[in-house]
Order: sequence, then C-alpha cells, then structure tokens
Amino acid sequence: MGGNSTGYVFRLHTFGESHGPAIGGIIDGCIPGLNIDVEKVQNQLDRRKPGQSEISTQRKESDVVQFLSGIFEGVTTGTPIGFQLLNEDQRSGDYSNLKDTYRPSHADFTYEAKYGIRDHRGGGRSSARETACRVVAGAVAQQILDLANIKVTAFVSQVGSVRMKNDHPGIDLSGIDANPVRCPESSTAAEMKELIAQLMDEGDTIGGIITCHISGCPAGLGEPVFDKLHAELGKAMLSINAVKGFEVGSGFSSVSMKGSEHNDAIYNEDGKIRTRTNFSGGIQGGISNGETIWFKVAFKPVASIRKIQETVNSSGESQELSVKGRHDPCVVPRAVPIVEAMASLVIVDFCLRSQTINFNFKS
Amino acid sequence: MGGNSTGYVFRLHTFGESHGPAIGGIIDGCIPGLNIDVEKVQNQLDRRKPGQSEISTQRKESDVVQFLSGIFEGVTTGTPIGFQLLNEDQRSGDYSNLKDTYRPSHADFTYEAKYGIRDHRGGGRSSARETACRVVAGAVAQQILDLANIKVTAFVSQVGSVRMKNDHPGIDLSGIDANPVRCPESSTAAEMKELIAQLMDEGDTIGGIITCHISGCPAGLGEPVFDKLHAELGKAMLSINAVKGFEVGSGFSSVSMKGSEHNDAIYNEDGKIRTRTNFSGGIQGGISNGETIWFKVAFKPVASIRKIQETVNSSGESQELSVKGRHDPCVVPRAVPIVEAMASLVIVDFCLRSQTINFNFKS
Amino acid sequence: MGGNSTGYVFRLHTFGESHGPAIGGIIDGCIPGLNIDVEKVQNQLDRRKPGQSEISTQRKESDVVQFLSGIFEGVTTGTPIGFQLLNEDQRSGDYSNLKDTYRPSHADFTYEAKYGIRDHRGGGRSSARETACRVVAGAVAQQILDLANIKVTAFVSQVGSVRMKNDHPGIDLSGIDANPVRCPESSTAAEMKELIAQLMDEGDTIGGIITCHISGCPAGLGEPVFDKLHAELGKAMLSINAVKGFEVGSGFSSVSMKGSEHNDAIYNEDGKIRTRTNFSGGIQGGISNGETIWFKVAFKPVASIRKIQETVNSSGESQELSVKGRHDPCVVPRAVPIVEAMASLVIVDFCLRSQTINFNFKS
Amino acid sequence: MGGNSTGYVFRLHTFGESHGPAIGGIIDGCIPGLNIDVEKVQNQLDRRKPGQSEISTQRKESDVVQFLSGIFEGVTTGTPIGFQLLNEDQRSGDYSNLKDTYRPSHADFTYEAKYGIRDHRGGGRSSARETACRVVAGAVAQQILDLANIKVTAFVSQVGSVRMKNDHPGIDLSGIDANPVRCPESSTAAEMKELIAQLMDEGDTIGGIITCHISGCPAGLGEPVFDKLHAELGKAMLSINAVKGFEVGSGFSSVSMKGSEHNDAIYNEDGKIRTRTNFSGGIQGGISNGETIWFKVAFKPVASIRKIQETVNSSGESQELSVKGRHDPCVVPRAVPIVEAMASLVIVDFCLRSQTINFNFKS
Repeated sequence: MGGNSTGYVFRLHTFGESHGPAIGGIIDGCIPGLNIDVEKVQNQLDRRKPGQSEISTQRKESDVVQFLSGIFEGVTTGTPIGFQLLNEDQRSGDYSNLKDTYRPSHADFTYEAKYGIRDHRGGGRSSARETACRVVAGAVAQQILDLANIKVTAFVSQVGSVRMKNDHPGIDLSGIDANPVRCPESSTAAEMKELIAQLMDEGDTIGGIITCHISGCPAGLGEPVFDKLHAELGKAMLSINAVKGFEVGSGFSSVSMKGSEHNDAIYNEDGKIRTRTNFSGGIQGGISNGETIWFKVAFKPVASIRKIQETVNSSGESQELSVKGRHDPCVVPRAVPIVEAMASLVIVDFCLRSQTINFNFKS
Repeated sequence: MGGNSTGYVFRLHTFGESHGPAIGGIIDGCIPGLNIDVEKVQNQLDRRKPGQSEISTQRKESDVVQFLSGIFEGVTTGTPIGFQLLNEDQRSGDYSNLKDTYRPSHADFTYEAKYGIRDHRGGGRSSARETACRVVAGAVAQQILDLANIKVTAFVSQVGSVRMKNDHPGIDLSGIDANPVRCPESSTAAEMKELIAQLMDEGDTIGGIITCHISGCPAGLGEPVFDKLHAELGKAMLSINAVKGFEVGSGFSSVSMKGSEHNDAIYNEDGKIRTRTNFSGGIQGGISNGETIWFKVAFKPVASIRKIQETVNSSGESQELSVKGRHDPCVVPRAVPIVEAMASLVIVDFCLRSQTINFNFKS
Repeated sequence: MGGNSTGYVFRLHTFGESHGPAIGGIIDGCIPGLNIDVEKVQNQLDRRKPGQSEISTQRKESDVVQFLSGIFEGVTTGTPIGFQLLNEDQRSGDYSNLKDTYRPSHADFTYEAKYGIRDHRGGGRSSARETACRVVAGAVAQQILDLANIKVTAFVSQVGSVRMKNDHPGIDLSGIDANPVRCPESSTAAEMKELIAQLMDEGDTIGGIITCHISGCPAGLGEPVFDKLHAELGKAMLSINAVKGFEVGSGFSSVSMKGSEHNDAIYNEDGKIRTRTNFSGGIQGGISNGETIWFKVAFKPVASIRKIQETVNSSGESQELSVKGRHDPCVVPRAVPIVEAMASLVIVDFCLRSQTINFNFKS
Repeated sequence: MGGNSTGYVFRLHTFGESHGPAIGGIIDGCIPGLNIDVEKVQNQLDRRKPGQSEISTQRKESDVVQFLSGIFEGVTTGTPIGFQLLNEDQRSGDYSNLKDTYRPSHADFTYEAKYGIRDHRGGGRSSARETACRVVAGAVAQQILDLANIKVTAFVSQVGSVRMKNDHPGIDLSGIDANPVRCPESSTAAEMKELIAQLMDEGDTIGGIITCHISGCPAGLGEPVFDKLHAELGKAMLSINAVKGFEVGSGFSSVSMKGSEHNDAIYNEDGKIRTRTNFSGGIQGGISNGETIWFKVAFKPVASIRKIQETVNSSGESQELSVKGRHDPCVVPRAVPIVEAMASLVIVDFCLRSQTINFNFKS
C-alpha cells in the first residue's frame, strides 16, 4: 500500500533517504539453501555507484552492503534477508539552499503536496540513491535465476539521438562493460560518450534508452489478465527514477505495421516450438513463449542542471535557480544495473509464483 | 496472485471465458452512498461492444450488465458489487478447427504451456472479451471521480502512420464520438477510417495509438518508489490485450531532449503552483503535480488475420492457417473505453489509497 | 482491503446479500487439471443448508451452485472459477419491521455506523447466508487436498454444557453424519439434540463448540512470524458468523499446565519423527510437525430469538423487539461444513504458498 | 506471502534472528507529521526486555532502538521508518549443544522440516526476540491512536490456576505496572508471583492469560466477512510466540449461554447508542459498536525447561535433553507490551483502512 514494496512471493521492502543514517531493505521470500555470492552483489552496486568514470557525477559513495539476517554461514535460510548501506559523503550543506525551493521536474513540490512535509536534503526519499537497495535485491534474485540459466542483460542502446544500429536479441553483448557508457557497439559507445561529455561541459543533461534481453526463460511464465509478464516488467521499469516510457518487443513501432507483417510465424525446431520473428518480445497474452524477452526503457534527461531555471519557493515567490551539487549529465550508464535488478526481481517473482513450472531451485 | 485482480482499495476481480455461460466480476471497496447510473455504465459497454460500425467486427454481442449485489435501491452500500454479462452469439463452431492449432501471436501456445490445458473456444480467458468487465468497473469508478471533477478522456491519436497533428493537453476533445474511429480531429479521423477500411478489404489489420488525458486531478496523488502513479498507469495499460508500449508525458521523445529543454519551469498562477510546459505528464516523482496527466498507449495490429500464416499444431506438425471468424481490422476505436476504464480504476484507487487528500466523496 | 477476499495463492472473493438476486464468488488460483466433482460440492452445500432437520430453521433454500467459468469439460483450466447461488424464498416482508430497528447482538447497528446505509433485508451482507460461498470454495479446496490425502473433518463437540467425553485426535469420526447434531458420540448427540429441541420450544437459542481434525498434513507447512499456520486458521474461524473463540491443541487448558507436563516429547517411529503427546495441536512455531492438526471453535448462541428484547430504532427511540422469521436454535450442526470449508481453504493455500514441499498436485 | 509482514495500510515488515548482528523492521504507511516520542517507544521495549525482575530470565539485552529513516527533525515524513536493534550478549555457545537436537515443543524440528536448514543459535528466527520489533512498531502505532484517544491496555489476568476475580471492562487498570507480574489486582499479583517463583525453583514453567481492553474506539471500525475486526485481532495474537488460544468478549463461556442471556440489550444513553452488557466484546458482525473492545489471549508454559526431556537429534537418535540457558519461568509478564503492540497495530491499521470514519489524525 505504502508503495515501498515490490513482488508477490519474492518481495522487497525498502527504506531510507539520501541523507539519513542509512538506506536498506528486507528481502522476504528468498529460497533457502542459496549460497550467496556477496562479491557479485557488491559488483552490481559498484556498477551503479557514482563517480565511476569521467562522464558521471564525481560524488563519491562507497555503497558497501551489510547483510543483517537470513544468511547463516553463507547460505540463505529462507527467513527475511535484512540489509543496509550506510550513507556517507552527506554534504547536506549543498542542499540547504533548496530547503524552500522547488526544483523544476523534481519531486520537491509533489512530495510536499502529498505529505505536507519533506526531507529536502538531496531529494530525501525521492532521490535515486534509493535504487541502490533495488540493486542489492536484484543481485540476489539474479543468483537464483543463474541456477535456472535465465540471464538478464541490459545495455545502453541510445543517448540523445545517437542510437545503436541493432539492439535486437541475437547481437553480441560481450562488450557492454568495455566502455563507461555500457553500450555493446564500441563505435556507437564512443559517439555517446562524446555527446555526454559535451553536455557536461554545457552544464546540461541528456536522455537515453536502455534495452534489456532476458534469455533462457521457459515458456509458460507469467499470469493472465492484470498481472501479465510485460505489465509487471513495465511497472517495474516505470518505477525507476527518470523513466518516461516502456515498450516490449516491437513496441511503438508495431503501430504502423500490418498484422501480416507483425505476426510471429510458428515453427518446430527439433521438437521445440519457436517463432520465426520475435515482434512479440518473447511474451504472448502476458505469458512467456520461450523466445528471448526483450524491452526498452526511455529515460528523460536528468533534471538537475547548472543552467538558470524559473521556479517558485514554498511561499509561492518567483525564484531563479541553478542547481549546484554533483550530478550526472546522463543517467543511463549507471541505470543499467538498476534495469537488470528490477527485471531480475520481476522474473524471479514470476518463477516463484508459478505453480506449474518446476524450476530446479524449487524443491 | 492469480493475476485476475487489480487495485488495492478499489479492487476488481474478474472471471470468465469468451464462450462460457458468462463473464463477470466483483468490485470490492466501492464507497457507500454512491448513486449508480446504470445507463452510464451501459453506455461505456456499448462503446466497447463489437458490431458498432462498418469498420469493426460484425460479431454481435448485446453485452448487458446485470448487477447482483452491493447496490440497494440504486445506491451502493459499501459491500462488494457482483456483476455479470451473459455470453451470447457463441459460435463455438467457428473455433473447432483451432482446437489443436496455435494461432501466431495469440496466447494459444503460451496458455497451453502454462496450464497444460486450455479452453480453445475463442481464446478462452485470453480473449479481449474479458475487457468488458473492466469497462463495467471503470464506469463505476468514473462516477466516483465525477464527484471530484476528475475527468478521464481517451481518444485515438494514431492509426498505422496516420497521426493527429496535436494530441497534447489543451486540445478540443468534444469530437471524439463524432466518428467511428474516435479521433477528435475530424479530417485525421477520415483518413484513419479509410486506412482501416482498406485493410479490412485486404483481410489484414493495423495498429494504433490511444492518448489519454486526465484533468482535474489534485497535486499529491500517487505513492513513492515502486507504486508510482505512472507505473501503475503503465501496468494497467500494458495489461490490456494487444498493448506493446506505454509512455507518459514526453515519453520516448524525451530521450533526445536536453534537461534545459525538458524541465518544466514552475510559476505561480494566482496562488496555484503550475508549470509552463508539461513534459512531466502531470506526474513528478510518481506523484501528481496538479497539471493534466497524459499518456499514450501503443496497440499492435490484431493478430487474427484472414491471410495464410505458418504455424504448428499441438503435435508440433506444420500447418497453414487462415483465421476465419469475425475480427476487427483495428482494435483502437473499441479500445478507447477500455483505456478510460483502466485509467479510472487506477485513479480512483489512488484517491482511496491517499491518506492525506480529503476528497469530497470520502466522509 | 475490502474484507471480502481470503487466501494468498488460492484466493476466494465473495459477493452477495441474503435478499439480493444472487450470492457468489470467484476462486482464483486453483490448480489446472483438477477433475471437479460437482456432486461433492453440492453435498457440502446440502450439509449447510437450512431446513435439514427438525432442529434447524424450517426456512427452505435449495442452494444449487452454478459454475460460470474456469472449468472446461469438467476439468479446471487454471483460470478463475466464477460461481453463483440464486437467492430463493426471499420473504423480505419478514424483515420490513426491522428496517429501522437494531436487533441486539446483530450487525445492524455496526453496519449502519460503518457505511451510513444498510440493506436491512435479512441482515444483508452480514447474514450467514454468505457462508454458502465459503462452502463452495472449500469443497473445491478439499478436492485438491484429497489428492495429497490430507483430510479435514469437523464435528460438534459441545452444545451448551453437553460435551463429548473425548474430542482429541484418534477418536472414531465415522458417526458424524449419523445424527442431525453432527456429533460422533451417539449418546452425547442424543443429549445435545434434546437440549436444542427444548430451547427451540422456549424460543431461545444456545451456543456450541466445533472441533476440527486435519490429518495427513506433512511437516513443514506454514509460514513464520505473522502468518503462522494456527494464526491463519484462527483468523479464518473467527471470520465465521457467531464465532467468539479459537484454540489450537491444548488451547486455554495449557494455561494451568507446567512446561514439563505440556511439552510434547519427541521420538523416532520407524524413521518418522513423532511426538508422544500432541498438546501442540500439530503445529510448532507456526509450522506443522506432521501430527494431526486440531483446534476448537466456540460459537455463541444465535442472536435471533423470539423472546422480547430491549433495543432502539434508528432514531434512537426505545423499542421492544421479538425477532420473527425462521431461525436456528443452535448454529453448530449447520456450521460443521463451514468450519471444514474455511480449514480447507487455509490448508490448500499454505500448500500452494509452500516453496519447499512438493505436493503431488503441483507439477 | 513470506509471513514476515503484517497490516494493510499501516504495515510492518520485520527481519532478524536472535543471534545475528541485528533485528529490525520497516514501518510503511505511517501518517506524516507525527511527532515521534522515542522515549515512549523505548519504554515499551523496556517493559518487554529480559532481566527486568527476579521472576524473569536474567539474560541481559539493552534493546535500544535506532531509527534509520522516515523521521526528519523528530517528525514522521510519511516515508518508511526503518529501525534496528543490535543483538548483544550473544552467548551462542549456550546453544552449540542444540545444533543437532530438536527441543520438544520448540520450532527446531518444524523449521528444519520447512527450510531444510536452520540457524540453531537461540532459535534463530523462531526466537521470541523477534517480538521486540513488534513492540517498536506497536509503540509508534499507539502514538497515532493517542491522537484519537484510543487506549490499548493489556494485563496479566491469570497465571496457572491463579486468576483475577474480575478482568472485565470497567475495572481499575492503574496498578498494572506496580508489580512485576503486571496484574492490576495486587493480592492476585502476589499469588501469581509466588507461583512463578516456585516453578522457577523447580526448573519448570507455567502458562498464563493476558486480557486486553481497547477503549475509545468509535463505532464502525472493521471490515466485513473475512477481515472482521476480531478475526484480525485473533490472528495478530495467535502470531505471538507461545499463544494457544484467543477469545473475544464472552468467548468460550458463551457456549453454554442462552441467546436471551447473551444478547446485549441496546439503549440510548444521552444520544449515544450503547449496550447494557458487553458479551459481544465491543464488536458485532466484525465491526466495532463503540463499547470497549476486550479479549483474552492464552499462553502455554514456556517450552525451555531444565528438567530432563525425551527427544531425538537430527539423525533421529534418541536423546535426553535438559535445556540450559537463561529462560523465563512464565512468559506473560513480559508479553503484556507485545499484546499491546499487536493490538495497536491492528487497530491503527483498521483506522487507516476505514474510508468512512474521519479520524483527526487523517487530513
């Protein structure tokens, strides 16, 4: 109800503001007997953390996860996994001038409208810092999916107008972490990086797209009607800060296609039912068909810009605002592990919801 | 869990297959004391029903709603509202040839993969017939929203490549039902209609986009983090049959915008905090800011086409398939009330979830 | 939220007032592939229905269940099972004098306090007629439990001060339906019947206790902390009309026992871990231990009595009231299938929630 | 689903084992703008903590709560309240001999049956230490209820066979904390204390009953059918470690009463509808009637006893066991704040679920 929980069986509850003592969460419903590789969790956190490269914010946060329960001698016990990340480098002073001012296209005004009160330091609960907790839980979820050879991989497919030639299933994804943009086409990555650097210089920001592929998912995953697999994926992606759009498979491009072009012809490949094309995005009627699930997530440009903007303060008086602090010129490179985390949470939850697929990680 | 329920406080549970005795549902959590206008409910059902115009399926269903509980002497009592629509014109014979064949880009294969069994008649539970129940509940929700002057209006903004010049908040929406396409720009509507008629002749189908505006929504509606207002709207829309994409406000077009272009400057209009532009789509940080909420929903072309397609049967043998029966060449005109229904369900649910906004329909 | 749903995976949603057109419900989350024996469902309904014997109300309701979806050619498809029971013999006239009067120890005043409006006919939603829907769903649940040889059996163990000599696990339960009281000790049953008949003559009513045994339940069922197996059983029983108390195993009698008397010694019986005594009621730490689960449910005397009572009307004026109509002198004989239904719903839900026990009805 | 959450609107999620680094939780759905009195929270924790008196365990835990989020400058912000209590005095060594042995009437065997693995140190998740988190959340809930003058008060009404002369609403509750047993009748308290001290000497334990009164609750609170007010209270109480029974109002004693004795006659007291007696326990049809809500909770004797018991180890071999460590001879004195906490959580949750009662702490 409160909006700080996700999942039905594999559940994540989170807490924490960007400038309180800590952020953290509880993972409830994890399978028992899982060997937790804490290093893999930390690795995903490191891919998300600020200050990784010259094209991201220079704010430093070590973001070390501490597990508090649910793991005994390195193995999950089936009881809730509590965890926290201490907040460091809390330069609240950076934000004191924002105490009474609403930053344009931030959540300052809306949180105050909703709650009548807000922790203005760094955006409080609305800060993207909260997504670190998602990455922790997502990295645990991925370790369960690994047992079933389900692989979730996200990458940057567009920055501004610079886009990959091909981001469809089947492309080589090995080069994602070879560059700070996390785009597997190296030449496109170079162009993206140049564009981001240019905007950084201008004190401006730019949007981007992350594409995600989920391979190895068996047919029959998902639920009918309201909880369709792509509906839950969509909700999960749209819950990430700065996301403005979601599309699965052919997505918005399907609009101008004919049925005869768009339908995925079905054939038998050595006893496995497959489709010739994959405009469906691996999902039909809300349930997986065994093809690679793929979708795109649109991120708006970061709202914190150095350029002068028009706004009002909490007394309704006009203000000119230039947002200081250390912000990202483009959020998508750091958002790649967040998209992977949310996708992993959704998929593992559907796996555990399924009463009919017998995954090897279920007894 | 089962996927056939939606909402947290204002909940809808549905049941029914396209060719069983009836479809129906239960609305739980409706406010007491609401005068139900059954004619308005029926009117929305009529906008959805097949056979309305020359560009829709000629299948006839009267779709008359029967309320079974929760309404006493025309007024809701606060107890659950049970309702049903009897299934008529069940030409199951039309489907007997599909018993063992998987229609491309339908849910035939995936339902069988999930459940190991399926009611093949007309798609069973995966049929869009199920959306009639959503329209009933949505029309009840709209009557609550009416009390708070919140207005949900959807319309067709694109068919194939034919699109409206402007579908943003502020346009004149009065002409939506003046044409069978439900596009408020009459000249564009005429083009759309021509395109649909042409595809109907070809035995083919085409996709489209529905845009939805929600006006009158106060600032402060929505929940943080996982249940953001646009995340729930997105999930609701993506749960509608044939939907492949969702975007709020600037959506995918934000990707190539700079922060300085995209940020919505804030000003004080006679004591009300407003924004100069509305790229945010009326939602910031997952919470409404008092501007018109607007979003777009992408529908793929209908999968049932007369043209010959490649597929397999349940024994895995290759088949050639031409889908007979009476299908729509383009789903968006009939999907307008479905989008309105789902949007109304989401908004009224957030209104009732809100602990801080005192709507006049709450005591 | 609305309070008309129960279960997490195997869910039941109900609707309906005692004097509307119908009552009914939706079972969501039933396993696919189950052969539904409709006669068994009807048999449980018949055990609950009024007018069965000379010691129950003479009101006649045929209570025939109609299934509307989710069952195809006699087999469940995994999609929601909609069902309804038409209301018959609606002598609303019997209740017209109650329109403005609050019956003592009924829900008349509290429903009006909550909703500001009530359907006064026969208690509306608060009528025990609603429990017929629970019996339908419970009878479906029992058919799943049958597949795993889990057996839920309830019986009357006390009426007024007449109680069974022994109602603990291990007794012979074969005679339950051999008498109209549903007490397996025939001599005690005769005394109970006499007591009820006497109160019927007096225009008065009496309370009673139902004991329930659940055998065949494997160890490891239940969830920790808030959703303990006996906590969910307790909630389910306390949700039945007229129930005032619940106890599991030793229950209230444990209060005056010493730990050394109460602890269930553990031993190894041919490789199965068992306990010498079963004061725990088959549940330890909220999780089943493989012994027979057993609990008791206390029902207060029926509130509808012919005797004159003091009350007020909705204007707050004093009234003398004698409740006419056709009411039961003692509710427990008819409540036996209701207790069985609720227990079956709880147990099957925990079976489907379990991620670690591989029941044979799960794939 | 995982069983570690409670509540619908005011939700509590908990984590932690008795011998891990910390236990803690998240309160989601708390109203914004509440001045948190941390001292009051700590005071309830102190009433629960071990080592308070000569008749409780001498184990020492300081149990200091740390709030990590959701409170800004002493006031709740509406965002989730994370909190933790560090585990101290972890003499895991005390438990090493229990690693492979199942303690009778503990959850050792059942947790292992369920999860296939268990943290054996001090009972792990099944330890009553977990209830400290409930006390924290309950104490926050009580501060909301204070704003509406709803008062939740629990006390010990029976230890072994020593019981209060009268524990019904209306008695003087001022003396509860005047003695270590927390029984408001001082002479009865002295007898109880003597009995407990005697059992402590014997290395044995004894059960008890806690009675709880909730005054100031307006009529109209609760939900119909499955989520009746007393059903949720019952579930909450039955979820507390060692609880075997629950009864509301007349409870089990109603069984041998006639309807004419049991019905609560209704009268008008200066414009307020009241009842002459309160056998209903302040709840009718699952909804409060404005009278004092009252119920009883039965606790079995503590299972950890020094006396030699029969059990088996995890290899199934017979063992003789004497549980060392520092355990309580009777749990009820320390369980009083736990009962108050769970009752407060249930009541505040129903207050926030209510769409029709306008509490002064809602906007």
